Amino acid sequence: MRLLKERILKDGRVKPGNVLKVDSFLNHMIDIDLLNEMGKEFKRLFAGCQINKILTIEASGIGIACIAAQYFGVPVVFAKKAQSINIDGDVYSARIESYTHKKSYEVIVSKRFIGPKDRVLIIDDFLSNGCALIGLIDIAASAGARVEGIGIAVEKGFQSGGAILRNMGIKLESLAIIDKMNPEDGSIEFRDGMN
Amino acid sequence: MRLLKERILKDGRVKPGNVLKVDSFLNHMIDIDLLNEMGKEFKRLFAGCQINKILTIEASGIGIACIAAQYFGVPVVFAKKAQSINIDGDVYSARIESYTHKKSYEVIVSKRFIGPKDRVLIIDDFLSNGCALIGLIDIAASAGARVEGIGIAVEKGFQSGGAILRNMGIKLESLAIIDKMNPEDGSIEFRDGMN
Repeated sequence: MRLLKERILKDGRVKPGNVLKVDSFLNHMIDIDLLNEMGKEFKRLFAGCQINKILTIEASGIGIACIAAQYFGVPVVFAKKAQSINIDGDVYSARIESYTHKKSYEVIVSKRFIGPKDRVLIIDDFLSNGCALIGLIDIAASAGARVEGIGIAVEKGFQSGGAILRNMGIKLESLAIIDKMNPEDGSIEFRDGMN
Repeated sequence: MRLLKERILKDGRVKPGNVLKVDSFLNHMIDIDLLNEMGKEFKRLFAGCQINKILTIEASGIGIACIAAQYFGVPVVFAKKAQSINIDGDVYSARIESYTHKKSYEVIVSKRFIGPKDRVLIIDDFLSNGCALIGLIDIAASAGARVEGIGIAVEKGFQSGGAILRNMGIKLESLAIIDKMNPEDGSIEFRDGMN
């Protein structure tokens, strides 16, 4: 998606340790106009899919998922990091290794909000090693729900997550795939150029 | 806001310990159509204010803030729970006592995303004792930003937060204020009836 790639080149910051900071428009400050364009693009990419729910994970996925949900006309369910006393015991859960935070945590979705009739689109901001997404896929599988596809804003193409998920036969659409980035000169190379 | 109150009566669940669960439409599964109506109402209530940014806090505030931001034409900044190695050192922070989680945590906003020129509307899903909101107000004050107002989905009117904030002279608008709720029969009383 050209608009997102241009924004990454303009405002993204490459940091050591394969970190790309997009916090000025995607996951700390959020450009809502950009999210709307991304939502329209997700709708175009998944137009052929029967989707009745968008599944994401707190916190950075929520804004992208909520804006996109307007174009699908469906509710959003976000997986919660397990700590709340407000969550009923009756949940599906998955353990996720966070690349960013260098630790693992449990995420949960109430059994009341995902089930065998659901055909979900999973949306998240980043795809790196894929652990968060595999956790969400596991939760959907536990619930008997069908994963129609995965929509990602920024995929780090030099990490393994994209290949793992595509090898699973999942329809995975990333709006920008980065194949190479260099913290020394800040350069970023996209898989399909600016297309 | 009548639509929200009707939804709370229909789908909210009163639990012991002053807990109101609205997780089927507001903060676990999210009804995007409802959020759009709430966004329009926030815009109506704060129509006279010059707002250039919406400030919220992860995770439950993000969806409400992002959908509302469409009606204000402004970006969203969400305060992050401090744990990420992806956050620069240059942040404003506040410590928050969580009523829900019975613990305290640090939230941060990058100094790059809030400053003296900002006139912010703070949005969150719940107002109970007000600690989360006072944390956000402190962050805005540290940044020299002006808080134009606070927009809340559900205020627990029987807890102290609303009175504290109104006594500070802040324009606080809650779409539903609950004055009484009873876990035994599930009854809920709103401050202004169904208006």
